[in-house]
Amino acid sequence: MVGASGYAGAELMRLLSGHPALRVVHATADSNAGAPVGRLYPSLGAAYPDLVLAAFDPEAVAGADVVFLALPHGESQRIAPGILGRVGHVVDLGADFRLPADTYARWYGAEHGAPELLDSFAFGIPELFAAEIEAAEHVASPGCYPTAAALALAPLVADGMVEGSGLTVDAMSGISGRGRGLSAASLFSEAADDVTAYGLLDHRHTGEIEFALAQVARKRTATGVSPPEVLFTPHLVPAVRGIFATCHARPAVDGLSTASLLDHYRRFYEGCRFVEVLDEAPHTKATSGSNVAHVTVRVDERTGRVLALAALDNLGKGAAGQAVQNANLLLGLPEDAGLGSVGLWP
Amino acid sequence: MVGASGYAGAELMRLLSGHPALRVVHATADSNAGAPVGRLYPSLGAAYPDLVLAAFDPEAVAGADVVFLALPHGESQRIAPGILGRVGHVVDLGADFRLPADTYARWYGAEHGAPELLDSFAFGIPELFAAEIEAAEHVASPGCYPTAAALALAPLVADGMVEGSGLTVDAMSGISGRGRGLSAASLFSEAADDVTAYGLLDHRHTGEIEFALAQVARKRTATGVSPPEVLFTPHLVPAVRGIFATCHARPAVDGLSTASLLDHYRRFYEGCRFVEVLDEAPHTKATSGSNVAHVTVRVDERTGRVLALAALDNLGKGAAGQAVQNANLLLGLPEDAGLGSVGLWP
Amino acid sequence: MVGASGYAGAELMRLLSGHPALRVVHATADSNAGAPVGRLYPSLGAAYPDLVLAAFDPEAVAGADVVFLALPHGESQRIAPGILGRVGHVVDLGADFRLPADTYARWYGAEHGAPELLDSFAFGIPELFAAEIEAAEHVASPGCYPTAAALALAPLVADGMVEGSGLTVDAMSGISGRGRGLSAASLFSEAADDVTAYGLLDHRHTGEIEFALAQVARKRTATGVSPPEVLFTPHLVPAVRGIFATCHARPAVDGLSTASLLDHYRRFYEGCRFVEVLDEAPHTKATSGSNVAHVTVRVDERTGRVLALAALDNLGKGAAGQAVQNANLLLGLPEDAGLGSVGLWP
Amino acid sequence: MVGASGYAGAELMRLLSGHPALRVVHATADSNAGAPVGRLYPSLGAAYPDLVLAAFDPEAVAGADVVFLALPHGESQRIAPGILGRVGHVVDLGADFRLPADTYARWYGAEHGAPELLDSFAFGIPELFAAEIEAAEHVASPGCYPTAAALALAPLVADGMVEGSGLTVDAMSGISGRGRGLSAASLFSEAADDVTAYGLLDHRHTGEIEFALAQVARKRTATGVSPPEVLFTPHLVPAVRGIFATCHARPAVDGLSTASLLDHYRRFYEGCRFVEVLDEAPHTKATSGSNVAHVTVRVDERTGRVLALAALDNLGKGAAGQAVQNANLLLGLPEDAGLGSVGLWP
Repeated sequence: MVGASGYAGAELMRLLSGHPALRVVHATADSNAGAPVGRLYPSLGAAYPDLVLAAFDPEAVAGADVVFLALPHGESQRIAPGILGRVGHVVDLGADFRLPADTYARWYGAEHGAPELLDSFAFGIPELFAAEIEAAEHVASPGCYPTAAALALAPLVADGMVEGSGLTVDAMSGISGRGRGLSAASLFSEAADDVTAYGLLDHRHTGEIEFALAQVARKRTATGVSPPEVLFTPHLVPAVRGIFATCHARPAVDGLSTASLLDHYRRFYEGCRFVEVLDEAPHTKATSGSNVAHVTVRVDERTGRVLALAALDNLGKGAAGQAVQNANLLLGLPEDAGLGSVGLWP
Repeated sequence: MVGASGYAGAELMRLLSGHPALRVVHATADSNAGAPVGRLYPSLGAAYPDLVLAAFDPEAVAGADVVFLALPHGESQRIAPGILGRVGHVVDLGADFRLPADTYARWYGAEHGAPELLDSFAFGIPELFAAEIEAAEHVASPGCYPTAAALALAPLVADGMVEGSGLTVDAMSGISGRGRGLSAASLFSEAADDVTAYGLLDHRHTGEIEFALAQVARKRTATGVSPPEVLFTPHLVPAVRGIFATCHARPAVDGLSTASLLDHYRRFYEGCRFVEVLDEAPHTKATSGSNVAHVTVRVDERTGRVLALAALDNLGKGAAGQAVQNANLLLGLPEDAGLGSVGLWP
Repeated sequence: MVGASGYAGAELMRLLSGHPALRVVHATADSNAGAPVGRLYPSLGAAYPDLVLAAFDPEAVAGADVVFLALPHGESQRIAPGILGRVGHVVDLGADFRLPADTYARWYGAEHGAPELLDSFAFGIPELFAAEIEAAEHVASPGCYPTAAALALAPLVADGMVEGSGLTVDAMSGISGRGRGLSAASLFSEAADDVTAYGLLDHRHTGEIEFALAQVARKRTATGVSPPEVLFTPHLVPAVRGIFATCHARPAVDGLSTASLLDHYRRFYEGCRFVEVLDEAPHTKATSGSNVAHVTVRVDERTGRVLALAALDNLGKGAAGQAVQNANLLLGLPEDAGLGSVGLWP
Repeated sequence: MVGASGYAGAELMRLLSGHPALRVVHATADSNAGAPVGRLYPSLGAAYPDLVLAAFDPEAVAGADVVFLALPHGESQRIAPGILGRVGHVVDLGADFRLPADTYARWYGAEHGAPELLDSFAFGIPELFAAEIEAAEHVASPGCYPTAAALALAPLVADGMVEGSGLTVDAMSGISGRGRGLSAASLFSEAADDVTAYGLLDHRHTGEIEFALAQVARKRTATGVSPPEVLFTPHLVPAVRGIFATCHARPAVDGLSTASLLDHYRRFYEGCRFVEVLDEAPHTKATSGSNVAHVTVRVDERTGRVLALAALDNLGKGAAGQAVQNANLLLGLPEDAGLGSVGLWP
């Protein structure tokens, strides 16, 4: 594991401590090299009594069956060339290999550093792209916002039921989504009892949401609906974990109803162990610590709108859980090895 | 004060304990009659050592300069006929006198019980309807969601800058918005670390939001834009106080920009001590315990949408604070008597 | 499982959903009979899609390998006579079978209803009473406060290192310790941002703490130190889960030091997979969702006091986790089957 | 105001914005010099639209009626010599002028930098040392832990009712007590849902607690009881504000009862507007945002112990509120000018 000191890395360690087939043999964290993992995360000390974080060294990860990268934006594309041929598979939890080079450049304001490697990565939302993942060498495992928004809207977009333009996603994230980096806005005393929005109009995950939906539309729709265009507004709410996505769309076909769409969602996600379609509004708490996503949908006949909601754990299905799920697929293991679907409630 | 045992009542008591011109002489709470107020709210014991809650009795409130009603839906229309002629003014914090009789019947599914009294109540958002309030005998002081949504959208709607149809309001409320009633969903262990949505498609405050915006549009716009039609989705987030409203609209005119709309908002709210237009996204925490609302606005040129945000304290500007502000106007006192604009941060 | 609708019951369901050898075949909850478990706890719906809560019926549980009772005080002693001979083992998470009849009567103010059954129950803290548990038919699994206090103080008391009199335990509990019952004090809006104490001087768990420590002392100490006498003060803090116990004692022997006591604790808990002795102060968060307890100890040479600290998850090691651990012992399964030692951090 | 960027400084600004006789004319914050105060604290922008934080310059504060210092430990003694003769009064919220030079050196591990100034500062807990404060030029306003512990124990110590040795104080602090400095332990994602202890055995505020109690004992007691010796264990709990102190003592006289001690406390604090003696256990929430402290006391006849409890807002009565109270006394203003006694509940 490369980048074990962040929250996604810590959650990966937690999940892998109970995984039947995977074992953490090496963990790196440049800024904390030399520290036992239990010093950074007291929760992990008992399960990893002897694991000391190392500085990254491509030699040390060579030969691993799977390498998880949980690094800040830009780091994965820097080190990937040095390890891709020397390990079984890479599951990248960062943003570096999720977008085509041109889309990446548009949203990140810089050319991609290793565009030749992009084709070896699948976009890792297994419920939408399982075949691509199983066929791929590596996976770029998307984060919490794109996963939540894509799971909420995919059944609508896939079959051209809604207009691609005019989609809006108002998403609420727990504070752990800001990571372990130090900033006043992440302090308990500032974030508690507060709700705010950020990244207005130009949050980078907008690109991933649009890309995921466009891929879904391309796979399933025969003819040209307008391409997905999303106004994405992320919010911070005083929970540690959880993403809640509230999405609005305009119907592109007649006759949609709440009942028909709930049926459609259930068929769309049939066989998906980690997506549950609910009649009621979902709760992030029901997904906490698990790899499950809860979704529902409504048609508002009064205003002529479709409302799609999704809840998941930003560190679970939105990060480490999905990464393990992707690793399971890459390695031919049961999709749910080491993963649970019961959230911590209360 | 009638209905002192709920959270809006408690916040009124807190505010009035420091009001220069108003003094609580009588407080009722039927289910807690006989209890000293400090037993219900230990915070209030020191300020009201001798105040014992009484059962409601119209005789006991007769002659008061102003009576605040903070009652469950339906109660105000039941008792109003018995007190309206016998007190100086009534400020009703409930929903009973905010809507015309027909709109009320549509959203509440029942005929109004005292429609003949509706005309004596002004709709109490002072920043939008100050003249009406000052001219009125009584005020129906709107609650947190309509106040937040109306303050966010009013400058757009007032001058026909956005389409009336297709408005969406995704609002996040602290748990105190659910009141002091006992339910599993209000328990700390259930609400903490959770985000959910509720009242999907048909929350009753939708009617008030549409009504407030329609009144604003009528006052200012010459010609016919489509009447405001709002898809309102309330959410619960694990904060005690605070409402954050994220509103989407489609421009009805050309050439809008973020800069021009921020200017427009600043002019619109010029002289309003309790609405502050910010360049940045607002924080509910900055308004906590105060009577201030913070708003901002954006134009997204990429998707052709307008985004308007508002934050306020649901018990302050969204309930008790606004009620005091309305009482001040009714009584000819300074608008900010007893009210602050500094939130509790941290 | 009898009493599945409370928080301990829900946590049991969560743990058992991943247990390799136990499967929930029947769950009762009188007040919610007929409800699918996922309606009470949305987190459990995916794992138990077909489980409907039943009213309690001794016939329905007859023949089970193990029955977990998670009932309000007094209920277990009422139903135990009807099921004890008809099931493999009972693990009672309630207070009914933890104390000798006379001690029970003193703290609960009523005679015990089934004193003849008390001998068939072992006091279920495996790290202190493993032999008794393995030899017993049934287990009375103690709750969060006694488990935390006993694990913190046992190594001191066991070998007569501290005076039995003059022990104090100041414990802080997350709000889930109050259970799912409805009361204003359990509401998010009241419990958030609050710290308080309760049960001053006479909390019933005092009796269990003293009993557990007396049993520990009796097992290990040759001669008569004063019997354990504890002033126990529970507090509520705004966390969902977690118990933190801060215990004070006076040395009964000379020459104690922090280093020597840490060594002593490590030897005392050697081989205990679920008690970890830390050099630093423990964090409840490090234990959240797990079955682990973290303890440490200090000697204050300035004031001549010993300070012992313990942290655990009140629903994990303090309730459902310990119950599963006890069931594992009764059934001859690996002690840690279905149990983890990594807390949810963040 | 010198040191306006920390939480105590921000709370001072909040309180002073509503003070009838004091006005903030200058505010410094070296690391944020040049920033409008509303950028650091959006809550303050509306009240101080034109206030820009300055670098500290003794010239700029010269002539002020009162200067509040809210600086990190060590800073006050460095700048005090340059301003003490040039301003009316100084109220120091830091630790620099609270202890005699020798006690200071023992707890802070360094010689005091300006011992000649110590005599001009009174120890600023008005309820215990009002005469000294009114007679003093300046005040060293103690912080949250010493204020809470001293108010809880003073009535016992003052009249020799308890032994000086063997006192213990287990205190729980909200996270704002850690200040605005950036550290992982202060992050929302780490502090939420966590309880821990810190500063075991040697927290520096122990010296202030012992000093305050010794001063109280000296003022009131004729003969020699053992000097106060305190084992102080601070804890962090996931609230923003609030200190809860749970104190244990051994009676030094016979015949104490809960009733007699409650009477004694009420007489001791008679006339104190900001200390309320309760029959029940106090709640920090009842004091939030106010300058009030709530205390109660119990005698445990079973174990022969006295239990004293106090709750207050660490930024209110434990910092900025008490500083304003002290300034009022120094300036001959009403003690409660600008201060409230009603906490924010909910």
